[in-house]
Amino acid sequence: MRLIEEKILKYGKVYPGNVLKVDSFLNHQVDVPLIAALAQEIYQHYNSCAVTKILTIEASGILLAGMTAQLFHVPMLFAKKSAAKNMSDGVYTAKVRSFTHGNEYTMVVSKEYLNKDDKVLLIDDFLADGNALRGLMEIVKAAGAVTVGAGIAIEKGFQQGGDKLREEGLDIFSLAIIGSMDAQEGVTFRSAM
Amino acid sequence: MRLIEEKILKYGKVYPGNVLKVDSFLNHQVDVPLIAALAQEIYQHYNSCAVTKILTIEASGILLAGMTAQLFHVPMLFAKKSAAKNMSDGVYTAKVRSFTHGNEYTMVVSKEYLNKDDKVLLIDDFLADGNALRGLMEIVKAAGAVTVGAGIAIEKGFQQGGDKLREEGLDIFSLAIIGSMDAQEGVTFRSAM
Repeated sequence: MRLIEEKILKYGKVYPGNVLKVDSFLNHQVDVPLIAALAQEIYQHYNSCAVTKILTIEASGILLAGMTAQLFHVPMLFAKKSAAKNMSDGVYTAKVRSFTHGNEYTMVVSKEYLNKDDKVLLIDDFLADGNALRGLMEIVKAAGAVTVGAGIAIEKGFQQGGDKLREEGLDIFSLAIIGSMDAQEGVTFRSAM
Repeated sequence: MRLIEEKILKYGKVYPGNVLKVDSFLNHQVDVPLIAALAQEIYQHYNSCAVTKILTIEASGILLAGMTAQLFHVPMLFAKKSAAKNMSDGVYTAKVRSFTHGNEYTMVVSKEYLNKDDKVLLIDDFLADGNALRGLMEIVKAAGAVTVGAGIAIEKGFQQGGDKLREEGLDIFSLAIIGSMDAQEGVTFRSAM
């Protein structure tokens, strides 16, 4: 069993509405050696992909993205969340509906930091319905760059966002894929379909 | 000259309203080896302080905080920004006025992750008027814990937030302190007063 699966079983809490609380080690208090280990596994998976940039969305994925970027010796770039309606010409934007927060936001990346020669590895802490990844992919595409894949700490497999993106050809590497979860029954894991 | 001072002189841009744009290496695109070097310097400064926890506020300080926590072998905790008016009993909160964004927000930390035995090192990417640090200190105090100091990437020395906090006894270690900045004249650095 993978380290992050053990952490989820030991410290994760399931709440109604498909909420998995992992804020003791992933997205509030952070277990840094765990993140370093996840970064190492992601690096090994995408090692041969000539990655030139790591892209995430603020905030919880930033440490994993940064530690992964360190292994690839490339810059890390984090998209910003904005509620603003008017954006400057100097940015790429994508509208995203957030599963977690039930709202819509715009992700923003300066055009300066992505270009057509970039091979971009996406990183995020969670993958649920896949909207955040789709937003990031839209931005990479707008820059004329290539998305080589997505490294994810925890995928909520029962929400199918990851499966759909895999069917469309995205190489997603999730460190843990949750097959089912329930406040009484707990969490089960599965592999990628 | 310190590495981050060189980066600021080479890549930083000064805009009206005391805005220093460093988003090519610090808070949008991130130069990870630079952050690792800053973390190392912060670690050396506070090495003897028996730090048990690193605390920052999302989002730009998260990588520096995480890399510093890795050196101390302690967890990293990032306060969340919330616009919500009603908070649960399970959290510490502090209201903060943001210089950068000109708005007010509430920072939130779960009570579970800070306790009276903690010796907390604060980390942030910027220190201007000091309001974010004061908010974090308020939360540490509410937990009955001790703030051992604050490691900062860039301090806007001309805004005096850092000097006031030093006068009040806080050990602030800033990797770069900007003495003056101007769109025409550029940036000058100074040491801590």
